[in-house]
Amino acid sequence: MDKDNIAAIVKGDKTIELAKWKLPELKNNDVLLSISAVGICGSDLKYWAYGKCGRFNLEGKPMVIGHEAAGVVVQVGSSVKSLQVGDRVAIEPGVSCKTCSHCKSGRYNLCPEMRFCATPPVHGNLCQYFVHDADFCFKLPPNVSDEEGAMIEPLSVAVHTCRRACVTSGHHVLIFGCGPIGILCGLVAKHYGATQVTIVDIDQDRLEVAKKLGAADVVHKATTTDNDPVTFAHTLREVANDDGSHAALECSGADISLKTAVHASRPGGCVLLVGRGSMDVPMPMVAAGTYEIDIRGIFRYANRYPEAIELVSSGAVDVASLVTHRFTLQKAGDAFTTAVSPKEKAMKVMIKSLRLNKKNNNKKY
Amino acid sequence: MDKDNIAAIVKGDKTIELAKWKLPELKNNDVLLSISAVGICGSDLKYWAYGKCGRFNLEGKPMVIGHEAAGVVVQVGSSVKSLQVGDRVAIEPGVSCKTCSHCKSGRYNLCPEMRFCATPPVHGNLCQYFVHDADFCFKLPPNVSDEEGAMIEPLSVAVHTCRRACVTSGHHVLIFGCGPIGILCGLVAKHYGATQVTIVDIDQDRLEVAKKLGAADVVHKATTTDNDPVTFAHTLREVANDDGSHAALECSGADISLKTAVHASRPGGCVLLVGRGSMDVPMPMVAAGTYEIDIRGIFRYANRYPEAIELVSSGAVDVASLVTHRFTLQKAGDAFTTAVSPKEKAMKVMIKSLRLNKKNNNKKY
Amino acid sequence: MDKDNIAAIVKGDKTIELAKWKLPELKNNDVLLSISAVGICGSDLKYWAYGKCGRFNLEGKPMVIGHEAAGVVVQVGSSVKSLQVGDRVAIEPGVSCKTCSHCKSGRYNLCPEMRFCATPPVHGNLCQYFVHDADFCFKLPPNVSDEEGAMIEPLSVAVHTCRRACVTSGHHVLIFGCGPIGILCGLVAKHYGATQVTIVDIDQDRLEVAKKLGAADVVHKATTTDNDPVTFAHTLREVANDDGSHAALECSGADISLKTAVHASRPGGCVLLVGRGSMDVPMPMVAAGTYEIDIRGIFRYANRYPEAIELVSSGAVDVASLVTHRFTLQKAGDAFTTAVSPKEKAMKVMIKSLRLNKKNNNKKY
Amino acid sequence: MDKDNIAAIVKGDKTIELAKWKLPELKNNDVLLSISAVGICGSDLKYWAYGKCGRFNLEGKPMVIGHEAAGVVVQVGSSVKSLQVGDRVAIEPGVSCKTCSHCKSGRYNLCPEMRFCATPPVHGNLCQYFVHDADFCFKLPPNVSDEEGAMIEPLSVAVHTCRRACVTSGHHVLIFGCGPIGILCGLVAKHYGATQVTIVDIDQDRLEVAKKLGAADVVHKATTTDNDPVTFAHTLREVANDDGSHAALECSGADISLKTAVHASRPGGCVLLVGRGSMDVPMPMVAAGTYEIDIRGIFRYANRYPEAIELVSSGAVDVASLVTHRFTLQKAGDAFTTAVSPKEKAMKVMIKSLRLNKKNNNKKY
Repeated sequence: MDKDNIAAIVKGDKTIELAKWKLPELKNNDVLLSISAVGICGSDLKYWAYGKCGRFNLEGKPMVIGHEAAGVVVQVGSSVKSLQVGDRVAIEPGVSCKTCSHCKSGRYNLCPEMRFCATPPVHGNLCQYFVHDADFCFKLPPNVSDEEGAMIEPLSVAVHTCRRACVTSGHHVLIFGCGPIGILCGLVAKHYGATQVTIVDIDQDRLEVAKKLGAADVVHKATTTDNDPVTFAHTLREVANDDGSHAALECSGADISLKTAVHASRPGGCVLLVGRGSMDVPMPMVAAGTYEIDIRGIFRYANRYPEAIELVSSGAVDVASLVTHRFTLQKAGDAFTTAVSPKEKAMKVMIKSLRLNKKNNNKKY
Repeated sequence: MDKDNIAAIVKGDKTIELAKWKLPELKNNDVLLSISAVGICGSDLKYWAYGKCGRFNLEGKPMVIGHEAAGVVVQVGSSVKSLQVGDRVAIEPGVSCKTCSHCKSGRYNLCPEMRFCATPPVHGNLCQYFVHDADFCFKLPPNVSDEEGAMIEPLSVAVHTCRRACVTSGHHVLIFGCGPIGILCGLVAKHYGATQVTIVDIDQDRLEVAKKLGAADVVHKATTTDNDPVTFAHTLREVANDDGSHAALECSGADISLKTAVHASRPGGCVLLVGRGSMDVPMPMVAAGTYEIDIRGIFRYANRYPEAIELVSSGAVDVASLVTHRFTLQKAGDAFTTAVSPKEKAMKVMIKSLRLNKKNNNKKY
Repeated sequence: MDKDNIAAIVKGDKTIELAKWKLPELKNNDVLLSISAVGICGSDLKYWAYGKCGRFNLEGKPMVIGHEAAGVVVQVGSSVKSLQVGDRVAIEPGVSCKTCSHCKSGRYNLCPEMRFCATPPVHGNLCQYFVHDADFCFKLPPNVSDEEGAMIEPLSVAVHTCRRACVTSGHHVLIFGCGPIGILCGLVAKHYGATQVTIVDIDQDRLEVAKKLGAADVVHKATTTDNDPVTFAHTLREVANDDGSHAALECSGADISLKTAVHASRPGGCVLLVGRGSMDVPMPMVAAGTYEIDIRGIFRYANRYPEAIELVSSGAVDVASLVTHRFTLQKAGDAFTTAVSPKEKAMKVMIKSLRLNKKNNNKKY
Repeated sequence: MDKDNIAAIVKGDKTIELAKWKLPELKNNDVLLSISAVGICGSDLKYWAYGKCGRFNLEGKPMVIGHEAAGVVVQVGSSVKSLQVGDRVAIEPGVSCKTCSHCKSGRYNLCPEMRFCATPPVHGNLCQYFVHDADFCFKLPPNVSDEEGAMIEPLSVAVHTCRRACVTSGHHVLIFGCGPIGILCGLVAKHYGATQVTIVDIDQDRLEVAKKLGAADVVHKATTTDNDPVTFAHTLREVANDDGSHAALECSGADISLKTAVHASRPGGCVLLVGRGSMDVPMPMVAAGTYEIDIRGIFRYANRYPEAIELVSSGAVDVASLVTHRFTLQKAGDAFTTAVSPKEKAMKVMIKSLRLNKKNNNKKY
């Protein structure tokens, strides 16, 4: 493992440092990957800008960033049978212990020993080479590109959300937030047979994208005056022309959306907490109880990569169209500043070429 | 239907008026019942005292009170096959439309046309005679008494709660609130195979009752200083000596309990909203989301009467021991004042004899 | 209810008699319908030809045939609120008691008091006028035609099958039998997100139809030499290029298909018994047990009409293309002989105009 | 790992050879166990007598027998955190790959790479020392004895069966076969809240045991004349005094029981295939389909050890009373001949002391 390996490192000060990074030993069940594409996610941006995200904190220690990645197998551990050198894979970034009751019963995302890329103190995979458990690397079919491979990560969040929401044929689905996760939830909901998907956001441009990609049947531009949950819910029922949603997916992180989601649900419906807003949110619990509206949280995903890959491979879900900007590893700093720049209107920023030779540095996408 | 019929009427001023009440016409699927026992519930007390409960309001109109009742069939409608004169029955107080999608798919408690006893503008059954749909009257086996028949109503709430919470063998269950509903939830949870039931209340006497009846393995007396949800949850984990509850059942109506329930749950656990507190409660949504803790509401019940009757008949759940006070219809006013009197330490107050002859008026229980 | 009403009557001798038929009294919850389209189903053909089907028998008594019907409301009972005169509806042919435990818990297809059109001793609806419970008549949106309304019945069987099979995104589905039910199951499975649907039949023409309609990704023409379940299953895995099906739907009524379905399933898969073959079938139970392959039966459906209508209305499922032949009521006898004639290659035969005037008798479709 | 290790070896000729057996290397996640108790199961007897069981065959190679075992940890691998030297454990005998889709989604019993004790070519644990994956060893609480620890294996089969059968409060459960598995299923069903458990067998003595242990509310002695499934089912409904079972658990391996189970089920009920009879069984598929009776197989178990241990520890299920005979390892041959001897009426034969010193050889139980 004496490869030269350059990694993109964040410190919480809005800079990216490219530096050599030592690779760990390749264990029996590991593969060594040459990384080919890495998407930038909202949590990456938080570590880059502030050094923390939710309950996790860099605590002053530099961290390799990145967790939405695809790569190519360049070496396999002694007991790896499922992969061979040259295989292109999507990398599921969280490696669980495989032995606790959560892991064995199928909910390994709840494993207390989880090691998840770019969640301190675990380093990420925005680097040239990366060592990962073979069984958390999923072979990509020929018709799924590297950057689609990187998009399997956010798509798995959307699959997990629609599964936990029991979205199915005939459902009316209401989505708050029109970023990549909201749009992917809309696309998956349509694939699951939802009759009507309504997406709400404050940004009309993003709503147009959602509609164009087929993620939404109905869109609604919210404004700052939509600040009363009951009134806002009433508006949304009128917009959707129904008796409330079967599933309301909160992907915006706005507290007002979460509260509104309860009032906008039909009796027996459910509200999914995908985005993260305030630690404590004043929730309309009497309404939730009286109409038996379930509120369910989403924490990453478990067992969703195979389905997500199949959704892309079969053409059911178009993830490629969400990628608006592409950079080389050399330009990773620019990638991050672009991702947070309002005027760039970035949906998904992708770092695609991780070789640092002259050719790549000048590469245009 | 020219029976003389005396009913107990509330007006929201803490009085009970006994007055003649006209019986409706007996339709094909109806039965005429002679009421034999009626329990007093918290919602009854609210209408009696304040004229309103939750989103329902007497709006100045007197209402016959009572919805936890058992009776004897004295006449059957022309198409009734399931019952005959003389049958003793538990009365499920809510009659749904039987034709909407909620009714047909098994969740008739969500039926928008529901008519529920003693929920305005529908009158209750604390009266001598009562006309009800035959299919919402469930025959009692010989070994289930009249007052146990009346207790089938709150027991159905507990069954519905434990079902919605998916309580099962091996579970640790945490219950907030040690009134009849909390205790019945504990008894049902034990019957469903819960390994450990912990009940929390501020009243030590009630906790002793819970323990004596077998509703709790562990009890915890909370105090007014238990007002920080995280700290309170930490205390409860120590008391329960576990990693959190599989199911936390909030039966107290206290906001602090509902918030604590989330923090006291293990990853993948669930919180059941049975009691009703404030309209809006500041809920720890990041914690709920991060650990995928589901929050589910309870609204009455559907399809629970047959199981509840079987639980009593088979001896699995002892409901009779919860009845602490008994009154005749003549003394209904005393029954209500007793139910709200702290010094009486009433658990369940039952009105058992509804004949107004001399013998009953002096009857001692 | 003094309308003239002509009905098509079967006696088990391969004849259709058109005769006046007395309408029942219109009860409170009933509607009087003018029938506009009726499809002919396999069970109809059995009563017409042999006077019996499965465990039901005409026992020498003439019966009005037909149960896949749509109509127009011409009169409503006094308590009907959901429909009004002029509404076009799909008619769910089975009316359950609405009061037993099966009905109340959402599985009313198991109601022992079920009265189902054209199942002796209950008469069918291939007639001009028909009286039916309003809540078993479902309003058709303007973009769903009368004959599509009649097709809601077999589509509901397919929806019920895919629901009971838990068909979902990413599944490989294997269907035996390429009649209307098999094809509709394929269409619904695709709508539910199945990645690959394979349909097997002995008739190449029908397989071509399935493929053309989008009901199958892969088709396989079976032959009479496919008579060993293990070998046949091996062939099907090669055809499907997978490790077995998640759901195998037996819609042919052939015993060999049912046996093969078990061997063709992947571990943890399921086999759905939709068609009816021999009363007793030698099933590979050790294989089913060792791989935990569940075998589930289908009996009609419950709560599927609203979804089926939405599938047609939203364009998700094309039922109209299955209709190959159309006749007037006057020519009902020809409709039945056409349906059983091999050279006609009928998929679905529809009786569309039920007025017996000169215009209709000459009407060409 | 240079311990002397004596193992009990079968060759399919009804003999037991005690011989030295080399221990494998202790890997990071392994523990070395001193075996303390091993129960003899029906499959062990088949390998001992005939060299094969179901689809597995010794193919002439000697095999260490035994898979129902408990032991004490004497050494731990370098990465083992959950256990320490001296811990008493129940040994889950099947070790799955932990990386395939079945393993990750919670159904590891379907893992194609499963290595299961005493299933050729994998050796069993009726030996003095044994090396096993730490995460398939479950610590026993102080109040669970070694032989109860060995009984966790068959108890896990019963737990898995009742879970797959969805046995719950209010259910009527019908069990065919009154061996250890049938009785344990009855005990678990009662713990899950089943209202009535009926057990059927041809051996009156075994039925008496079931009744005495509380595994059955009703017992029925079948005879060789109970050979028509419909008639037999009719008898069983009379015996159970109900409209059929919610769950019928076939634990006898008799084909007639499996067929009868379908006819003895109520509409919507289920039949569980726990025992193994003929490869192909003529099943009443029209009846199963018409009443939507699901047929589900059982293959070992997954994730059931923790619950099973808790059932014993909490006193919910008494497994100790099933042990009728005890032998030392020295007398293992006698243990097997006793287990198959009709006159011994053995329920569970246990090999308890595995030290070969003078004291143990003479030890009486």
